[in-house]
Amino acid sequence: MTTWLTTLKTETPQEGYDLAVKMARVAIKMTQPDADVRDKLRPVYAKDADALIASSQVVATHFATVAAANNYWIETP
Amino acid sequence: MTTWLTTLKTETPQEGYDLAVKMARVAIKMTQPDADVRDKLRPVYAKDADALIASSQVVATHFATVAAANNYWIETP
Amino acid sequence: MTTWLTTLKTETPQEGYDLAVKMARVAIKMTQPDADVRDKLRPVYAKDADALIASSQVVATHFATVAAANNYWIETP
Amino acid sequence: MTTWLTTLKTETPQEGYDLAVKMARVAIKMTQPDADVRDKLRPVYAKDADALIASSQVVATHFATVAAANNYWIETP
Amino acid sequence: MTTWLTTLKTETPQEGYDLAVKMARVAIKMTQPDADVRDKLRPVYAKDADALIASSQVVATHFATVAAANNYWIETP
Amino acid sequence: MTTWLTTLKTETPQEGYDLAVKMARVAIKMTQPDADVRDKLRPVYAKDADALIASSQVVATHFATVAAANNYWIETP
Repeated sequence: MTTWLTTLKTETPQEGYDLAVKMARVAIKMTQPDADVRDKLRPVYAKDADALIASSQVVATHFATVAAANNYWIETP
Repeated sequence: MTTWLTTLKTETPQEGYDLAVKMARVAIKMTQPDADVRDKLRPVYAKDADALIASSQVVATHFATVAAANNYWIETP
Repeated sequence: MTTWLTTLKTETPQEGYDLAVKMARVAIKMTQPDADVRDKLRPVYAKDADALIASSQVVATHFATVAAANNYWIETP
Repeated sequence: MTTWLTTLKTETPQEGYDLAVKMARVAIKMTQPDADVRDKLRPVYAKDADALIASSQVVATHFATVAAANNYWIETP
Repeated sequence: MTTWLTTLKTETPQEGYDLAVKMARVAIKMTQPDADVRDKLRPVYAKDADALIASSQVVATHFATVAAANNYWIETP
Repeated sequence: MTTWLTTLKTETPQEGYDLAVKMARVAIKMTQPDADVRDKLRPVYAKDADALIASSQVVATHFATVAAANNYWIETP
């Protein structure tokens, strides 16, 4: 896999959130490397409330890490 | 997506809780961007105890991050 | 929603635990604001081991935050 | 409910683990106060691998809190 | 139960990981003390991907605690 | 099992992420040591959105630990 994660630092909390979303998705890519299979799965779980909530949980866990890495963006003006 | 998360700082724990609820929901929006689909899912999972509890778990995870970012609102008078 | 969370500080660990239980429930209220629907769901999931355990997980996550906010009640005599 | 949680301090990690088990169970008691119902549920989920693993997850989350409260028992001789 | 957890300190991360696996299993033993029942459950969930992943989640949570207790083995040469 | 985890230190966040993926998988190996069984399970859960998301959750939990062990790679130039 090409380089995709060089730093956990982001300018804003929102960019940190976007990074957390990306981090949640990469693990899925690594377990299911076939893009065609993933493309078929996506519309299914995107209509499944349980899957959407579980995805949101993964994002929350990664966001906690990203937020800590950025000291919660406290120095951000 | 427009700017929605500029800071993790809130005045009170309750505002921090509200922010955590928002953070839990945005990940769902990002995975299912179609508002019509989400509007159909919502009444279903809102009557499903498992989904409600799972949603509450996501909120709890985000609240932990928001609370840490606010140093648990300890300086709040 | 009226003010319900003004501080994470509690006198004892047990009060902190009770607060965590409350915090777990509020997210459910916010997702399902209709008290009648919640009243119907409650007896169902209260007899469902999986739901009870999942609820306990949410409490555990919130308790971790409340405990940290109280510095684990270490100064309590 | 009577007093059951006056401190997170324990003498040893194992006592901390036992406390975490207790903390996981109390939330279930608070959601399902009827001991008869709980007594019926217990043998069912005690034979259900998913429920056993989920219970173990709750214990793990509480143990993390108890361990932090005891500074990981590092000063214990 | 006999003494099984006297310290969270381990020599290496891998020993810490093994301890986390043990900690995940003990909670299951405490909820289902009957070894015969556990012996029947094990081959079933060991072929169930969901149960295996859930078990791995419990290990991950305990490992986080063990790693913190060992200051992430940073002083290890 | 041979030595596989001698340090949590990695050069970059991405290597830390790869380590987290490995850590998630080892627990599964330890619960299901039979490679043939795992080889049969893999293509099944790799097409199951719920299992993929749950796997991603385990990775997220381990990544939090690895990131903390590396002080979030903040000193990395």
